[in-house]
Amino acid sequence: MKLVTFSHNGRTRLGQLLDGEIMEMAWPDSMLAAVRRSMTPSPGSVRFKLEDVKIEAPLIPGKIIAIGLNYADHAKETGKEVPDKPLIFAKFPSAVIGPNEPITWRQSITEEVDWEAELAVVIGRRAKEVSEDEAMEHVFGYMCANDVSARDLQQRKDLQWTRGKSLDTFCPLGPWLVTRDEIPDPHNLRITSSINGEIMQDSNTSNLIFKIPTLISYLSQHFTLEPGDVILTGTPPGVGMGMNPPRFLKDGEVVTVSIEGLGELSNPCRVLP
Amino acid sequence: MKLVTFSHNGRTRLGQLLDGEIMEMAWPDSMLAAVRRSMTPSPGSVRFKLEDVKIEAPLIPGKIIAIGLNYADHAKETGKEVPDKPLIFAKFPSAVIGPNEPITWRQSITEEVDWEAELAVVIGRRAKEVSEDEAMEHVFGYMCANDVSARDLQQRKDLQWTRGKSLDTFCPLGPWLVTRDEIPDPHNLRITSSINGEIMQDSNTSNLIFKIPTLISYLSQHFTLEPGDVILTGTPPGVGMGMNPPRFLKDGEVVTVSIEGLGELSNPCRVLP
Repeated sequence: MKLVTFSHNGRTRLGQLLDGEIMEMAWPDSMLAAVRRSMTPSPGSVRFKLEDVKIEAPLIPGKIIAIGLNYADHAKETGKEVPDKPLIFAKFPSAVIGPNEPITWRQSITEEVDWEAELAVVIGRRAKEVSEDEAMEHVFGYMCANDVSARDLQQRKDLQWTRGKSLDTFCPLGPWLVTRDEIPDPHNLRITSSINGEIMQDSNTSNLIFKIPTLISYLSQHFTLEPGDVILTGTPPGVGMGMNPPRFLKDGEVVTVSIEGLGELSNPCRVLP
Repeated sequence: MKLVTFSHNGRTRLGQLLDGEIMEMAWPDSMLAAVRRSMTPSPGSVRFKLEDVKIEAPLIPGKIIAIGLNYADHAKETGKEVPDKPLIFAKFPSAVIGPNEPITWRQSITEEVDWEAELAVVIGRRAKEVSEDEAMEHVFGYMCANDVSARDLQQRKDLQWTRGKSLDTFCPLGPWLVTRDEIPDPHNLRITSSINGEIMQDSNTSNLIFKIPTLISYLSQHFTLEPGDVILTGTPPGVGMGMNPPRFLKDGEVVTVSIEGLGELSNPCRVLP
């Protein structure tokens, strides 16, 4: 099931993507409610054409736990060693935007905005000290994510990554939340990013160093994962900072993250005056 | 007004501390609702004795933005330079506990658990790119906080602080949320921590390097501050890692954060098997 948070005439609702249209759900009325109750939403009868609604971010996570350097080739391109355990950092949920919403920044804050295509895992059931064997039962579904990063802040100006990773609009999510049953093997999905249609990253989630059960089990030894929490599993090689010379996002460019079975997440870039 | 989240007979409600008792509020029914509406809650008529209720954390923040090295003497004791701008890091909201709840950890995860007394600022009104002059209007109130930290993870094992700062139970908040009008000058409050009654930290919020209006304005240039978000303003000197030899929390010890006008936040320590 491809679940969608959408708004129509100013009202935000939960829907399901069906034959290229959106069928409004009778209940529950929000993605977070669906996730929290681990329920299969019940279809209503009203359908909307995609062009008649605004697709929003599927949900605003309670917390966003991001994993760094989780593809070996990406670690290499950033000049860092492959970590021997998951490298955890945070993105603030206030950074979340939906598909087609602009990624914005001021040049007074950052001049090095980079993209990172990532598979996002949405937690559906509370996980505290769970084993790898039982970890997947705590997954509600998957989304495309763009872990947009201000590299000057992250790599040079700050001791911690939080600021450079959490600027408003720096966490596009969507376009849908695809429930777990639709993705039998989340570790065999092509994952790409492109700018104005030109491919930048092109890899497969089979290259993840720490796989989803390992991540969920490891994280849950430290903090409780709650329904609606999101894990960003890391990005493959092909980001701007790894290029020679480095290449960063420019005003007017459109960056698109695409993951097999999860749709395309496109966002225009806008430099604010 | 000293607002309290409390539970009685399994029901969680909002109350006000009055003459050493708790008066239940008629509305709203939760701290987050009060904060989000920036409202003065309306007193009801039912009173409870403190010993008859369980005081909970005043609220679970949407995000917790923590500031590092914001007292010059604390930066010195950790061997770090005083930053030229606020050092931002994140604690996950799942780490929050209330007064008297145990701070717990497993020795397989950390063996160096440290305390940090901090003034917590609760945001009451959305703040996006606000000036220092208008910043204080966005404050709903203040709390005591303990920015509990796993130093082995934070300082040696991890590149990022997120894991060592966000273990479950590592963010005690409370006992009350004191509304802004009760604290005319938040930059002149004695702040202490003690272990089993022995003072460890003893400073004053007048020693904050970056004051609250500066923090709110600075943070809001990067991310939107939302009602219910909490800023942890940093800790004064006297933490365990700064001692010679270092001294960390032990099973059975009780750590107490006390801030003038904001009450005392005590938590027992428990090492899990």
